[in-house]
Amino acid sequence: MSVTAAKGFQAAGIAAGIKENGNPDLALVVNRGPRQAAAGVFTSNRVKAAPVLWSEQVLKGGVVSAVVLNSGGANACTGPQGFQDTHATAEKVAEVLEGHNAGEVVVCSTGLIGVTLPMDKLLPGVEQVAAQLSEHGGEKAAIAIKTTDSVHKTAVVSKGGWTVGGMAKGAGMLAPGLATMLVVLTTDAALDSDVLDKALRDATRLTFDRVDSDGCMSTNDTVLLLASGASEVTPEYAEFAAAVREVCDDLGQQLIRDAEGASKDIKVEVVGAASEDDAVEVGRSIARNNLLKCAIHGEDPNWGRVLSAIGTTKAAFDPNQLNVAINGVWVCKNGGVGEDRELVDMRYREVHIVADLAAGAETATIWTNDLTADYVHENSAYSS
Amino acid sequence: MSVTAAKGFQAAGIAAGIKENGNPDLALVVNRGPRQAAAGVFTSNRVKAAPVLWSEQVLKGGVVSAVVLNSGGANACTGPQGFQDTHATAEKVAEVLEGHNAGEVVVCSTGLIGVTLPMDKLLPGVEQVAAQLSEHGGEKAAIAIKTTDSVHKTAVVSKGGWTVGGMAKGAGMLAPGLATMLVVLTTDAALDSDVLDKALRDATRLTFDRVDSDGCMSTNDTVLLLASGASEVTPEYAEFAAAVREVCDDLGQQLIRDAEGASKDIKVEVVGAASEDDAVEVGRSIARNNLLKCAIHGEDPNWGRVLSAIGTTKAAFDPNQLNVAINGVWVCKNGGVGEDRELVDMRYREVHIVADLAAGAETATIWTNDLTADYVHENSAYSS
Repeated sequence: MSVTAAKGFQAAGIAAGIKENGNPDLALVVNRGPRQAAAGVFTSNRVKAAPVLWSEQVLKGGVVSAVVLNSGGANACTGPQGFQDTHATAEKVAEVLEGHNAGEVVVCSTGLIGVTLPMDKLLPGVEQVAAQLSEHGGEKAAIAIKTTDSVHKTAVVSKGGWTVGGMAKGAGMLAPGLATMLVVLTTDAALDSDVLDKALRDATRLTFDRVDSDGCMSTNDTVLLLASGASEVTPEYAEFAAAVREVCDDLGQQLIRDAEGASKDIKVEVVGAASEDDAVEVGRSIARNNLLKCAIHGEDPNWGRVLSAIGTTKAAFDPNQLNVAINGVWVCKNGGVGEDRELVDMRYREVHIVADLAAGAETATIWTNDLTADYVHENSAYSS
Repeated sequence: MSVTAAKGFQAAGIAAGIKENGNPDLALVVNRGPRQAAAGVFTSNRVKAAPVLWSEQVLKGGVVSAVVLNSGGANACTGPQGFQDTHATAEKVAEVLEGHNAGEVVVCSTGLIGVTLPMDKLLPGVEQVAAQLSEHGGEKAAIAIKTTDSVHKTAVVSKGGWTVGGMAKGAGMLAPGLATMLVVLTTDAALDSDVLDKALRDATRLTFDRVDSDGCMSTNDTVLLLASGASEVTPEYAEFAAAVREVCDDLGQQLIRDAEGASKDIKVEVVGAASEDDAVEVGRSIARNNLLKCAIHGEDPNWGRVLSAIGTTKAAFDPNQLNVAINGVWVCKNGGVGEDRELVDMRYREVHIVADLAAGAETATIWTNDLTADYVHENSAYSS
């Protein structure tokens, strides 16, 4: 289903030869209208890949007619040549699709940083992928954007007469600000780009921005939302925003479950915070603590490492009032020893940590993974 | 040599039975004067162990007559009982040493968080360790404070008639603000506590504070500097401060070389920064990037991950002017591909990364380690 679940969209994915192993590596998503409204959110990393610099400019117009995505190379830290390559790719897409304007073509790239793209493979690939465009091409597009992903990721929500669907790639460098991934969402709702922009930002703030697998932020993150208006339905904002958030949440969960080398998915829920910012700061500090992530891997309900992580933040709390539950057992009460840690069952993949700051009523949830020898192995061997 | 290299000090270390495996676990350092001036720097973690809360109060008086240190238990997150245990330990030291005041006895603990100390072992241990005090006891004291340390750590600098020596423990949870470790430094220079305080802060800011093995900050960090005045020499401040810094630098290097599971010691040198704060922020961001730490473990000179880490900071720089050298090879120039990465020789334990921000003349150096499967194994299995 993916990006072609909503009406008005076509997609395709092929192997253009960018990846040396011959796997699919080039995807194209086209908005056939009648509208071509769009919004996008990009990495906050100040070292941005060429396609991000290009696509940020495209989104300023609020109109996107097509998105071309390649895996097998991030086109980041590639200087003026990299930007020219991105530009040439957009021009090629506009030329092949006919009647399109390169200034309305978004380009996304993912893979190794610091290597220029093989344009002799990519440009002929654009012709090939365009020839495959179809209303059923969403799955193939989702497969073509994989890098170290073990599975392709798609999600769809359908409401009364309209649909939001999407695809995502990402298995490492998952960190906020925003999420470290490529995501394309499509909808056939009849909405303008300013509404799309608000719904997308509201959704990513609470979903992809709170997925923090390894604390590392990439140079290429892009999340797009395209609207074709083909359903001729204009939903209420709240209902539309909820659907976008639901799709983002679903895809975000799929990213966490497929994180490189992980054996546990850890839900860090901060409650009793004086402010949402405090809750997020504490959640991130816990989610990024390597010692805790190792302990969880070892199925050790090591609440002392949770307290150590909380203690490095500026959030409002009294160390003698902190409470921590791991998988439902309050192992730390009032900053000290609580219920018997032997009661904690950590056999399952999902681990739920609740940190109660006892300082207010605000909450936030951050998702992360454990730190494993497999993570080390994958990231020692794979240059990205 | 350790803490008894300087005149006027006695020390001892014994196995009191706090550690279940019977290894040495209790150390005592006594300043026999004629002066008992002292300064201390403690963890900036807001969740502080009972001995830190106690010792911060002791140091306010600027007088320390003895330091008692136990491994085998951190006495952190142990509530009112934990604080009473620390107090009782100081009282016991004062009683056993005769003529001492508990309010001038510093207590340090290290080991597992969230477990109360076995006072039935610790208090008799204080009597035993006091009976062993000697001018040659520095090594035994250094051995007794080890936790996962593979070696004990000592350093000594002697100048014209006076000496600074010390001992340190630490092999994990090494992060700044300040360093995550227990350190006792002694000197026979005749100096007041305010001079000691300034020299200690100046030294730790540039040494222990810039050792960041795994980004995790403990609840028990303590660095002490005690002066006996027994040499009857009052050195110039600059000369004394340089000696303290030299000993701290030496001990900090020993901590990095003994970091849990590490196979590489990584020197992250930031140059061309607009300010020292910028240089430190960038250095820490690079030093804490798990993906880069994995790459270094795999002997992969992955400069793209260095740039990704720099890009997450607020430091002044232009992405198109960044330069990165790894072991002397400028693999990234002007934000793009530089010299051939195949030229980088990464066979040796020390790895030297230079990040040039091309934005000024300030510099900072942060020391860290690679991220290895052994680190994961040690910290999955060892509850601390």
